[in-house]
Formats: sequence, C-alpha cells, structure tokens
Amino acid sequence: MKAAIIGASGYTGGELIRLMQSHPHVTIDVATSRQLAGRPVTSQHPHLKGFCNLTFENPDISALDTDIAFLAVPHTAAMAYVPDLLEQGIKIIDLSADYRLPKAVFEEVYGTPHTAWKDIPYGLCELHRDACKNAPFVSNPGCFPTGATLAAAPLAEKAHTVIYDSKTGVSGAGDSPSATTHFPNVGDNFTAYKLTSHRHLAEMRQELVHLGSPARCYFTPHLLPVNRGILTTAHILLDEPIEQKEVEKLYQDYYKNEPFVRYQRPSLNSVRGSNFCDLMVEASENRVVAVSVIDNLVKGASGQAIQNMNLMCGWDETTGLMTPGMLP
Amino acid sequence: MKAAIIGASGYTGGELIRLMQSHPHVTIDVATSRQLAGRPVTSQHPHLKGFCNLTFENPDISALDTDIAFLAVPHTAAMAYVPDLLEQGIKIIDLSADYRLPKAVFEEVYGTPHTAWKDIPYGLCELHRDACKNAPFVSNPGCFPTGATLAAAPLAEKAHTVIYDSKTGVSGAGDSPSATTHFPNVGDNFTAYKLTSHRHLAEMRQELVHLGSPARCYFTPHLLPVNRGILTTAHILLDEPIEQKEVEKLYQDYYKNEPFVRYQRPSLNSVRGSNFCDLMVEASENRVVAVSVIDNLVKGASGQAIQNMNLMCGWDETTGLMTPGMLP
Amino acid sequence: MKAAIIGASGYTGGELIRLMQSHPHVTIDVATSRQLAGRPVTSQHPHLKGFCNLTFENPDISALDTDIAFLAVPHTAAMAYVPDLLEQGIKIIDLSADYRLPKAVFEEVYGTPHTAWKDIPYGLCELHRDACKNAPFVSNPGCFPTGATLAAAPLAEKAHTVIYDSKTGVSGAGDSPSATTHFPNVGDNFTAYKLTSHRHLAEMRQELVHLGSPARCYFTPHLLPVNRGILTTAHILLDEPIEQKEVEKLYQDYYKNEPFVRYQRPSLNSVRGSNFCDLMVEASENRVVAVSVIDNLVKGASGQAIQNMNLMCGWDETTGLMTPGMLP
Amino acid sequence: MKAAIIGASGYTGGELIRLMQSHPHVTIDVATSRQLAGRPVTSQHPHLKGFCNLTFENPDISALDTDIAFLAVPHTAAMAYVPDLLEQGIKIIDLSADYRLPKAVFEEVYGTPHTAWKDIPYGLCELHRDACKNAPFVSNPGCFPTGATLAAAPLAEKAHTVIYDSKTGVSGAGDSPSATTHFPNVGDNFTAYKLTSHRHLAEMRQELVHLGSPARCYFTPHLLPVNRGILTTAHILLDEPIEQKEVEKLYQDYYKNEPFVRYQRPSLNSVRGSNFCDLMVEASENRVVAVSVIDNLVKGASGQAIQNMNLMCGWDETTGLMTPGMLP
Repeated sequence: MKAAIIGASGYTGGELIRLMQSHPHVTIDVATSRQLAGRPVTSQHPHLKGFCNLTFENPDISALDTDIAFLAVPHTAAMAYVPDLLEQGIKIIDLSADYRLPKAVFEEVYGTPHTAWKDIPYGLCELHRDACKNAPFVSNPGCFPTGATLAAAPLAEKAHTVIYDSKTGVSGAGDSPSATTHFPNVGDNFTAYKLTSHRHLAEMRQELVHLGSPARCYFTPHLLPVNRGILTTAHILLDEPIEQKEVEKLYQDYYKNEPFVRYQRPSLNSVRGSNFCDLMVEASENRVVAVSVIDNLVKGASGQAIQNMNLMCGWDETTGLMTPGMLP
Repeated sequence: MKAAIIGASGYTGGELIRLMQSHPHVTIDVATSRQLAGRPVTSQHPHLKGFCNLTFENPDISALDTDIAFLAVPHTAAMAYVPDLLEQGIKIIDLSADYRLPKAVFEEVYGTPHTAWKDIPYGLCELHRDACKNAPFVSNPGCFPTGATLAAAPLAEKAHTVIYDSKTGVSGAGDSPSATTHFPNVGDNFTAYKLTSHRHLAEMRQELVHLGSPARCYFTPHLLPVNRGILTTAHILLDEPIEQKEVEKLYQDYYKNEPFVRYQRPSLNSVRGSNFCDLMVEASENRVVAVSVIDNLVKGASGQAIQNMNLMCGWDETTGLMTPGMLP
Repeated sequence: MKAAIIGASGYTGGELIRLMQSHPHVTIDVATSRQLAGRPVTSQHPHLKGFCNLTFENPDISALDTDIAFLAVPHTAAMAYVPDLLEQGIKIIDLSADYRLPKAVFEEVYGTPHTAWKDIPYGLCELHRDACKNAPFVSNPGCFPTGATLAAAPLAEKAHTVIYDSKTGVSGAGDSPSATTHFPNVGDNFTAYKLTSHRHLAEMRQELVHLGSPARCYFTPHLLPVNRGILTTAHILLDEPIEQKEVEKLYQDYYKNEPFVRYQRPSLNSVRGSNFCDLMVEASENRVVAVSVIDNLVKGASGQAIQNMNLMCGWDETTGLMTPGMLP
Repeated sequence: MKAAIIGASGYTGGELIRLMQSHPHVTIDVATSRQLAGRPVTSQHPHLKGFCNLTFENPDISALDTDIAFLAVPHTAAMAYVPDLLEQGIKIIDLSADYRLPKAVFEEVYGTPHTAWKDIPYGLCELHRDACKNAPFVSNPGCFPTGATLAAAPLAEKAHTVIYDSKTGVSGAGDSPSATTHFPNVGDNFTAYKLTSHRHLAEMRQELVHLGSPARCYFTPHLLPVNRGILTTAHILLDEPIEQKEVEKLYQDYYKNEPFVRYQRPSLNSVRGSNFCDLMVEASENRVVAVSVIDNLVKGASGQAIQNMNLMCGWDETTGLMTPGMLP
C-alpha cells in the first residue's frame, strides 16, 4: 500500500518514516514540505540516510497518487487538505488538532473557525478501537491526552477529581527553534508552563466524559531537559478510599489484553522509541497516584498513527510496531 | 566566629564552605569526615581549591573548639552528637532529619528510636523567624518541605486539599553512587518515586497544621536529569473559586518583606546557586496552581542553614547570602 | 538457530536481546548472570518486557544447549569459558578484550596472564571481513577502536601521526554505579581521563599496523554527559598536503560498498540505536580532520557482534541490523 | 566608579552584572539594548531580580555619563562605538572580536573592513598583564583562545605542532535561538563543527607567536550538551620526549603566581561560574596532552573583562573575582 506524509519535515514526519521501515504492508512514497521542497528527505532527517530516497515536494493533493495520507501539519492546516483527500477516496490520519474536538469546542479552544468539520473517530485506540476499525478518517490524539487518559481510565468512573501533572521532553515543541527550546534555557533546568490553560485539557476532559467519569479535570504541563517522552502523574481523588491490591488489580485487568500497555514501573527510557505506554498505580487514603509514560513522538504521535492505520486497514493492530524501547 | 562542619564530605558540606566564603563574621575551621580523615578538603571539593586549606578530621566533639556546629550527617547520626555539643555551649544547626518532627512522629516515619530528642525551632525562616532568633539549636528543614510549604503557605487556611508534585535534581540524593544516580539511568530520562510514601510528607503536613490549614496533604516526588534545584507544583483545591488578581495579590503581600522570596516565573536556573525561592500562582475555578523553585542545596539545605545561623546569632538575616543565581 | 548470552545483565547483554528481536534466524534462549540468577531478564531490562521471557541463570557451560555464545563479560572472565565452548563446537563471539590482542600485548596492557590464548579474527568487519566469514570464533573490537579506526583507515598509509581525540557516552562505563558515573559528577559537566594511557590504544595501533600505516598513534578519551555514542575526532598529520576534494573522494570510495558506513556530517543522534558509522573529513594544509560517530553499544559492541555472527554463519552481513538511528 | 554595558541583553551582559555584584569599586548604571529598550533588565535576566533595577536603554554614546564601558556586542558593532568613547575619555573593554587581531588579519578572518582600527593590548591577563595595566582600552580575548593558550603556553617554545581539540557549552553560541542551539539537536548529542576553519584559530596562532613558538597550530571545536564551560585538549608534539615530572613542574612553576590558574584535574564543574582556569598535563613519548577548563562566560568573557578592568584601573587584579566555582 502507498502512503503519503503531508508535512514531513518535522519530528512526527521523521518518525513516521523511521517506524514504517518495519511495516510489511506500506511504503511511503510521498513526503511533502513547502519549505524544503526539492531537497532530499535525508537532508532534514539524516538518520534515515540509506532508508529513504524521497525528495520533499510541494503538497499537491489533486495529483496525489496514494492510498493513505498522514497529515503531520499544524492545526488549521489539516482542515484545508481534508475535503480534497476525502473526495479522492484517500484514507486520512490527521495528527493535527483539527478533528479531535467537537466543532464548537475546537473553535473556542483554538480561537479560530473550523472550515471543514466532520465527526470522526478519536484515535486513542485503547478506548475507541471499534470506531477506528475500517474507518476512512481518524483523528490522532494529542500527546498529553494519550498518556494522561491511559493513566486515569480504569478509575475514571470512581474519581471526583483528576489532576494531570505532566512532564514532557522538548521534541513535543517541534523542530522550530525558539526561546523555549534554546538549549541554555532548558539544559540543567526545569519549568512549568500554561499552569491552568493548556489546550490539551479539552481533549482530556472529553475522554473522561467518554469514560463516564463525573470528575473535575485539571492539567499542568512542564518542560523536561530530555528529548523524548512524557511522564504524567495523575493525582486521582476518590470519594472512598481504595486498597492498593484492589487498584493494582483494577489496572492490570483493565489493560490485560492491550498489546501496548504494560503494567510496570514507568521510566521514560523503557518506552523510548517504542509505541508502549508503561504505567503503575499507588493508593493512599482517598488518593490514587497513577503514573504513565509514553514516547511523545511514538505512542503520542506517529506510532499511534500507524496503530490507527492498522485498524483502519483491517490489519493486526500491532503490525510493524512490535519494537522494544531503547534503554539506556 | 568559628564554625565546624560535622560531616563535611557531602554536597551540603561543600556548599556550606562555598557559601561561607562571602560571610563576613564566620570562619569554618573544622571539617570532619570519618571516611576522608587526613585528606585535604579540596580532594573532595576541588572547586574550593584556593579557598579552603582544611584537612578532613575525625569528629571529636569533646575536643571541639568552635562556636557553632553544622551537623551535615545522615539521620540518626546527628542525635548522637547533640548532647555533647549542647553541654559545651556550642550552637547547633542540624541539617539532618533528627529534630524536624515530634519524637513519636520521627520514630514512626524513620522507623528508629530517637535517643536524644528535644523540642527546638523548625528553621523554615519565613514561618518560624521569631523562634529561631537567638535560639541555641535549630533544625534545618528538608529540601522538599521548604519549597513546597512556601508555595502553599499563603493559601493554607483556605485549602481543603494540597497536592505537592515535586521534581528534584539528583544532588538531593547525596554524593554516594547508586543505581538511582547512575547517569545512564537518569540522563535523558525522568521517573517518579515513592509515589505516596516519601518521609518529607510528615514535615509538609506539620507545616500546614502550623499555618492553621485544615487541608489534606499529599506529596509525590520525581527525579529530574539536572544537578540542582527543586520545582514544586502545588495543586491547591479550595472550597470556593478565587480570582487570579486576588490570589496573586495574596501571594505578593504575604511575601513582600521576605528577602529571599521573589514573585516571578519559576525556573530552576533563576535560583541556581542562590538562597532564593521564586514562585508564581495561577487560579482556575476552585483550583490554584502555585509553583515554587529553590536550589535544593542552598535554600533547601546549606543556604537556609546560614540564614538560620544569622538569626541565631542576631545578625542581619541576609548576611553573606545576597548573591544572585547563576543563569544560564 | 539458538544463541546464548553469557553475562546478559549489562548494557551489551540488553542490546543483544533488543537487536535480536529483528533477526529472522536466531533466538536467544539462554541469558546468564551470576548475580541475578533466578530473576526475570526484564527485571534488569524493563524495556524488553513483552519481548523476552527468559530468566537469568547461572552460567553452566557444560550443559549449554546452544549454537552460538556471546561472551558479554569483563576481561579475563571470557578466557575461562572459551575452551569448554570450543570443545562443544559452539561458535563464540567474545565482546570482552581477551582475544583482541596478541598474547604478550594483552598480558602487558591488561596486567594479567592469559590462560587460554588463541589467534582468532579481530571482528572489525570492514577491515577483517574475509577472516570472519565462517570463522568459529571471533573477537569483537573495543568501542573506541571501532570508531577511531574507521575514521583513519582510508588515510592510514599516508599518515605520519594519528591522534584520536574521542568522546564517549556514559553507557561505555557499564551499568555498575561509581563516582565516575554518578549523575552530579557527569551532568552539565565534561572531563578527560587516561590522557595518554587508555588500554584501547593498543588495539588502535594494531589496526593501523594492519593497514600498513607507519603512523605514530595517540589516544585521549573524554566522558560526555550523554547516554550513548562515541564521536572520535581523528587529527591526521600527513607528510604532504592534500586537497579537500581528493580526501573526500578517498573516503567515499573507500567505504562505497560498506553497508554500515555513511559519509555525512557526524552527529551522535543520527546513529543512535543503530549499527551505522557516520563520518566526514576535512583537509587543511598537512592536517586532515576525520570525524566519526558510532553508537558504542551497537556498532561499538552488540550490533557489530551480530554483524560478526552473520559473517560467521554465512548470512547476509546486514541481516537483522538494517534499522535507522533514532533522532531526536 | 561608574560602568556601562553596551549590549547588555546577552549572556556576557548578564554575567557582567552578576559578577559585578561582588565588586567593591564599581556600579553598573547603564545597560543598553536596542531590542529591549524600555524593559527592565530583569525581564531578560530574571536571576538578577533584587540586584539590578536598571532598565535597558538605547545606546547613546554622546550622552553617556560613565567611567568605563564594556562593549558586549557582536563583531563590527564594537568598532562603531569606539571612537566616540575614546574621545570622551571613557575607558573601554571590548568583548567583541574587533580589536583582537592586526587590522589585515581581522579583515581577512572576519571578511569585513575595519573602520576604526587601533593597536591595543590583548587582554589575556596572564600573558599581557603589563600591557593591560593602566591601559585606557583593552581587547578581551575570545573564549576558545583563552583556555587553549593557557593550556599550551608553558610548552609553546618547545612544540613543533599544537592541536587544540576544544569542547564548548552551548552558551558560547549566544542567547539567540537557532537550529544549532535547538534542544533536541543538542541534548544527549555531540557534534564537531568548523573542523578546520573556526575564526578563533587566528587568535590562537597569534598568541603562540607572541610566546615565541615555532609550532604549527590547528583547532577543532565541538558542541557539548552543557550550558557553560570549555574544555580544551591540547595535543602538543615536541621534537624531543619529555618526562612527566619535568612537564608537570614546568606547568606548576609557570603558573605559580597566577591567582586564577590552578593545577588540578580539569572538570567543567570545578570552575563553573568562576574566573578560574584549571589545568593538568600528561606526557607520553614526544607528545604532551595538556587539558584546561574555563567557564566560557567568566574567564572566557565577562570575568576576564573584570580582571582587565582591575588592571586598567590599578586595582588588585582579583578584586571582586575571588569566588569559587559551583559544584555540583
């Protein structure tokens, strides 16, 4: 099968190409980038030298000869491509934020009108698997909501308050240099940002509602001096105390058939480069602390996009993704 | 005045010597270490070459000719020195955990009997200033409780729940190598530990009670791939919503006369190497997020110990400590 | 085919298991560790959870049911296993230093007698490919000599002096905590060590001689605050000046058929986790600067060991190893 | 005395203000920045909150009421200010490259005409102390040449080849974000750059000539994932072998009266934040490896500028600079 990456110059584009090397059914044969059109993909992604001979090209949807398109573009850019792609019968996985929220919520959170809205599955596979299967168009979740939601899901119904305290690696900010990503501002340092107002909160709340949770939900992100990975500490407050054994069993049962969720002590390096979410839970009085880790570029973006592609195409969900993390 | 450091081989010992270089009234003339006795202090603290000509010696309290002793030893080791020091009329600042909690609480939390307990001031200067002034013996607070308590104090009375989510640099684990501090286990990585059971929680609860707070208090620490610094994100839940302007004013007023607390965006590197605590607060509905940063080895240990010494000796509290942080 | 890892608890053991996941012909079914015998392999290598169900066992060579053994043990430990393994007709790849040097040189450099010496191929595949093909026993090169030798090889005959200035990630020091690997001693820091006397120098000189080089050879290693990777800056002094174009062509021609050597700007992250050596060269007067990067745990250890296994077993040299690096 | 910093928004500007806090004779009362004019200095340098109440202003040399001006501006910008400053009798310390080289060399190396050249002392204090004393205008050396030259100076006359292999922290690249300083391109990574053509080579060669050295001199810089510090490994080739004891004594004697040069194992963290240069030397056959470390922003920039100010003003050279490094 043929795949195209629209917006292939960034980290998620690079990861899609890297991960797809071990996928048996798909070949990426189009990689677009307005800025780098005409340059080899490996000029931007040198680790792929010997693996990818493509040249970045200008996106030209009408001439696109492909079966599936990954939209790895900023929010509002994706919605501009969607109608044409759908018309041509090309499957779509949108890694931007454009189709993750109801229209009105999107417009409020992102402060911009939505010009091509559709109601499509939210591709957090563990929670929306059936909806994604054979779907022609799926929205890939945000990196923070992925790890956070998986941390709280088994307790969602019992919680009255969920506070996600998340810590992300710098690749989550993309590949454009800025003061935020300037090494001397990050190295040997640590900061919190958007203490109460990060856009991903809307997705998190939506998923708790989807899970039938009555909980109030809060979110504070932090920036780590690491390249990849998100660790989310979910502080979950319950009406009633819960025993450690009970909550542990609850989590293990909840995820026992999930190929990409492992119950073990979370550490960014156990999942680095892989599609796994590792998590662990500890109870104390009315509070449960659930900690999850994912690689923000894999399970938090490109890996989950491939997982969604597998579902959409009727393949085994793990196809091409069963690779261990890299430690150290 | 003469000062002795009992247990001078670790990071807090090194910091006491480093910081005391700019103190006009005190000279350190004894530095003990059982393990390194006979070796120059600079063999362990090479950055002090040219500043400290002492040789580590075995601790011999009965022969100690000094005015004030800093106990920079592990918990249970400090209580063994205290009676002899007091008998000789030597002032004491204990950087260990031995005198931070009531006897029964200490014995439960640290799982060991206390053989020489006394009720002395808890040297979190901003909250216990008067008790520390001219006191002969002060207990220096834990690193986590220092930053956490300063983050929550202004709202303590209004909160029903306080969750401290703290992230510390590796120097907090001391200078002894272990799997926890092994570079490949920490570098480009991030982990949570003791999710609900860290010993410092008892100090945090004690301080909230001291502040008249009815709040439940929880604490989860994390290990950052940085050398120094603790950032604490205090998730404070209130019975009633509070406006941003109101909470901001509350914090600024609360700390307006504090020489070492600054209201500004917290970043580990703004306080690196200094005795400052920077903090900021943001309200959203019933939740307030207060974020504080300190250097765990300075305001979280040796700097605050000198601040306490200044109070105990009747000097200006800032003597020798008015040095800016080091950024980048 | 069945493979056993003798000494599987360290980083090279973990990497052998990780990399072998994509090898179509080999299954690891024995992983030994005296210290961790009885514990699951994933207790030490949590990233492998779901991929490796083995339990560490005590090494028992006489009862070993395997086709090939990887010796991932410290020097002098390997020579103790070799005779028994050979007697049973088990193929061996020795990742220790025991068989890299002539007996007398080994004994001098490592300061210990060699009790089971044999003359076997030195498995730097690019230089000793034919000797390794179908060999029953191969010695895997040191990490520093691998990257350094590949940097200098094309110019070896023309050089009168070769100075290798190498910088390694901390995983090269193994997984045992020590002052050297203690995070606060490494993070945001950088040091040189063994300025003129590192043991790997003997291998480097041996390979220059093998290449017919008359050059004097020197080596200084440094410790980087990174997990993986070695960058070697080879300062190569020639009797006569060379043009940039000429030396560039020389390198590109020399390596044009090598599957794991790429001519491009070297950056640790382009080869991270992969078996590639990226290199580049620049001439100025009589000096050429050649820079190479490898992942010390892959091309510098376990990846090259698999490359050697492929040669020894008559398979395509790249089998199971054609995976791109991970950037960022 | 009054001092002005022209171009105070960058790291060297911030360091000048930080370091000057402990200088008894000087107050900075002007800090210029075209880009940030009107904003408080602490908006850019938050660590200085409580220490510096200045507001950035547009540089207006004709109205400058000051005794000494630090030019912390990019090359070519300094030469535009110099004539006016000199005319007003204001002492100048130029931290840019504009006055470090003879006019013709500057114009070739920097590829731009020099419009206001003057022959002034090169402020590497250890080598040009007498020239700097009471001088009205001094050029502050480059960061790389400072550490490199101090490493080689004692052997300069005996060497036939000197190769400086230097590794710098990212703050050396300034505070403007770029792909080079983007965290995911630097963190857990390491690269070499300008393998044979860095501009600082001209200064290095100039100083070797000044020292009477006949040596060929080469230089290759590398970028470390650390904030501050330069470690230079000087590979020094001699016509004749030298004994370890002899070369060690040579270095110790050479620097025995230098207040800021210490003979001890070099480690970036021993000098972090301080004006020290630590160095060590090891001999092997005809090669000597000399390793030096400095903080690029202190001894490599702002600290040395203050050292020069002290010399120019007839004060003790160490005034305000006798502060130990910060470890860890």
